[in-house]
Amino acid sequence: MATIEANPFPYEFDVNHVALVCIDMQRDFCQPGGFAESLGNNIDNVAPCIPVIAELQAAFRTAGLPVIHTKECHKPDLSDLPTAKRNRGNPKVKIGDVGPMGRILIDGEEGSDFIAENAPAAGELVIAEPGKDAFYRTIFHEYLMTRNITNLVITGVTTEVCVQTTMRCANDRGYDCLMVADGTDSYFPEFKEVTLRSVVAQGGIVGWTGTSETILNLLASR
Amino acid sequence: MATIEANPFPYEFDVNHVALVCIDMQRDFCQPGGFAESLGNNIDNVAPCIPVIAELQAAFRTAGLPVIHTKECHKPDLSDLPTAKRNRGNPKVKIGDVGPMGRILIDGEEGSDFIAENAPAAGELVIAEPGKDAFYRTIFHEYLMTRNITNLVITGVTTEVCVQTTMRCANDRGYDCLMVADGTDSYFPEFKEVTLRSVVAQGGIVGWTGTSETILNLLASR
Repeated sequence: MATIEANPFPYEFDVNHVALVCIDMQRDFCQPGGFAESLGNNIDNVAPCIPVIAELQAAFRTAGLPVIHTKECHKPDLSDLPTAKRNRGNPKVKIGDVGPMGRILIDGEEGSDFIAENAPAAGELVIAEPGKDAFYRTIFHEYLMTRNITNLVITGVTTEVCVQTTMRCANDRGYDCLMVADGTDSYFPEFKEVTLRSVVAQGGIVGWTGTSETILNLLASR
Repeated sequence: MATIEANPFPYEFDVNHVALVCIDMQRDFCQPGGFAESLGNNIDNVAPCIPVIAELQAAFRTAGLPVIHTKECHKPDLSDLPTAKRNRGNPKVKIGDVGPMGRILIDGEEGSDFIAENAPAAGELVIAEPGKDAFYRTIFHEYLMTRNITNLVITGVTTEVCVQTTMRCANDRGYDCLMVADGTDSYFPEFKEVTLRSVVAQGGIVGWTGTSETILNLLASR
């Protein structure tokens, strides 16, 4: 068993049963000119985690450990898009409409694809998720169970939306999760900071938080 | 259609398709001498929402509208309790052990039952949930779909744990949800306050927040 420093107490895991999860590192959420920026979000706030995730991805790959990617998107025929999600707030440009980089949040379009810095390597699992919880209507849980993965190192954007929702739902399913504090970002720094504290409250009610450095050091020392 | 004032914009719903959801108003979470207090949580912080929820329950019942209750608990044989949840932090008293009010978080025990002020009326749906997301391994979604319920007015404890997790997962499933600001509480007031702001960010990315008064006024005016 490996142990690294973490909040609210050290995080212990078997290196043979851990995976890196990279949530929604998509052009439309992270890149200038994308959908999120067009909605008025400050894209600069999610830039810091990009090189951190790239470093973690490289280290997990070198160690032969799984790297899993999620992307929030919908089928081109919108069959997995709830009406409520499409119409919320009656926006000028809706999911499925043509946006700055193809049809917005549609699988296969330029904007819904991954940014180059954090793109999947050949053979890595990509989960196309229709919601904020990567377990909802996907094979994520079955995939992890089949491979005896018990521990998830979680990164991505945005902290208080898809990242925490997926971590909370992973925790319900019995996974021990560590959110990487410098490997996740939000358009709203306050929401990130409070989310990091709320997931570790009450004795790690949702799991742990830690830094990329401790994980990288551990993997380098093997 | 009815419309009430809400954040980030007015909340519109058909009164024939709305339900009140009361999350985890259980003795062990809300009552002096319960499990949560024994862990060091300040129970006083979750007291304010109790009479508010009682008023909403009475108003929904008078209007003939559904009231749904969740309780976080596990089967007596612990078959639905993930090992990770039981062992997290190696606590002195674990789920399933005998605590201040019977076996901790076990269905049917005194502590896992509802506080008298917010107890279900005869015939109301009670969802025993093994996680923080009331949709995980329960009939909640099927129940709502079968009854054409599209809108959820969400109350309960604690705001940033089971309440927001269930709201986020309801939103993924296409429900338009309103979290009642004075009908939910947390042991940590800051977490409540930030959660209320984060669910309505980005144009209501998870839904709406509003006050019990606007809902009570609407129901009283019918």
